[in-house]
Amino acid sequence: MKILISNDDGIDSYGIIALSKALAKLGDIYVVAPIFEQSAAGHAITMKKHLKVVSHYINDEFFGYAVNGTPADCVKIGITKVLNINPDIVVAGINHGSNTSTNIIYSGTVSVAREAAMMDIPAVAFSINGRTSENIDWAAEVAAEITFKAFKNGIKPGKLLNVNFPNIPKEQVKGILITKQGNSRFADSYTTIYDEIGREYHQLTGEFINLDGDDLHIDQNAIDNGYISITPIKLDSTDHEEFELIKDWSFTEISLRS
Amino acid sequence: MKILISNDDGIDSYGIIALSKALAKLGDIYVVAPIFEQSAAGHAITMKKHLKVVSHYINDEFFGYAVNGTPADCVKIGITKVLNINPDIVVAGINHGSNTSTNIIYSGTVSVAREAAMMDIPAVAFSINGRTSENIDWAAEVAAEITFKAFKNGIKPGKLLNVNFPNIPKEQVKGILITKQGNSRFADSYTTIYDEIGREYHQLTGEFINLDGDDLHIDQNAIDNGYISITPIKLDSTDHEEFELIKDWSFTEISLRS
Repeated sequence: MKILISNDDGIDSYGIIALSKALAKLGDIYVVAPIFEQSAAGHAITMKKHLKVVSHYINDEFFGYAVNGTPADCVKIGITKVLNINPDIVVAGINHGSNTSTNIIYSGTVSVAREAAMMDIPAVAFSINGRTSENIDWAAEVAAEITFKAFKNGIKPGKLLNVNFPNIPKEQVKGILITKQGNSRFADSYTTIYDEIGREYHQLTGEFINLDGDDLHIDQNAIDNGYISITPIKLDSTDHEEFELIKDWSFTEISLRS
Repeated sequence: MKILISNDDGIDSYGIIALSKALAKLGDIYVVAPIFEQSAAGHAITMKKHLKVVSHYINDEFFGYAVNGTPADCVKIGITKVLNINPDIVVAGINHGSNTSTNIIYSGTVSVAREAAMMDIPAVAFSINGRTSENIDWAAEVAAEITFKAFKNGIKPGKLLNVNFPNIPKEQVKGILITKQGNSRFADSYTTIYDEIGREYHQLTGEFINLDGDDLHIDQNAIDNGYISITPIKLDSTDHEEFELIKDWSFTEISLRS
């Protein structure tokens, strides 16, 4: 089993080290990850700049390729240029911070798995609900089992799994729930900052707003209540309901056909 | 009618100028767009850097705010900080180059509309199938009608329209089709480049692969065949089919609950 691992926190984050160690028990691991943190990179790719790939050693047991690009770049260049392998599965994380609800649109971690799905390779993204590291090791062990199950049971082309762990000790975890992507989002605000000569700059801040009530089968609610959340995600975002409604619109400039 | 306009080609691209002129007939326009091109920015947002907003004049009739950020940043900061208005609709484009099928995942243009949808504001993204400008003016006129219809008929919260124009004279256009997001994608490759002291760099290239047969109600096929394509898009990408299948997986480390 050949496993490509990437992330958005960067190649030296504890989450990718722990995940790599745990997944090494399943087969051959190949790490291609951003040299610098790429949180909130979304599904950006690098088209106008040249990418540089360098070998990166953390210690005796951990080797990877570091790329001056985005998470999606790492998957593309890792598979088509650097490694010369066809991975059996692509795994992202473990991200320090949850990736749930509409935040999966901003997430570089999820974009790793989404990019693999676009190459018809099974893929799983892993995140933990917090910035601390004390629960990453058990999460990595469970991530290995989920990765194995995803490989063995198969994930259809164009689909991926988005997994989030609660940031609590393993013995307190209530179980695994299959969930749906929530509708919750950040209410944005900007803090204005002035430099020493009075020029104005803006720094994004925001507050998470729960719009999903208390349904446990919603990603963020599951982890907030002590469950591991597995959300199946697809690439097609066509709104089939709206599709039917728009057919009734009338246009004058150019006619609507059916 | 208050209309916020942004794009990913940058505030000085012909597409946003033509669109602004056409939309000015519908109401008050507010332009907040990236100072530099942000193609393939995906849905990236700027979190660790400070954003700068500067007034930008192209000529007597065209004023906007230029931001050193991504398309999604422009929507966030435009609405929450710069303009002090609640736009009735957010419009993106006109992008020079189509944004169809899985490429909407990479598109900065679509991310403008997606970001607005996350703020529960109706939104439409416009792109034209080519890098030339000779058909942008008529496309902008039709874009104004579609924008008005989207405002008048309403687009539900969390939903957006992705519109693509064929790059042909208006009189050759066969009509408007409501379409679905295609499954086509790029087969990636990288060109390796060496600098003067032999260091290796990689430049992304790729070839568009049509995986959607000849169904006219698929976004790229519609424009390739002379139609204007309108695809309704939603934020929720949960795969409900896979959701049911995963319920049958068995886990040993931690139990699956239902």
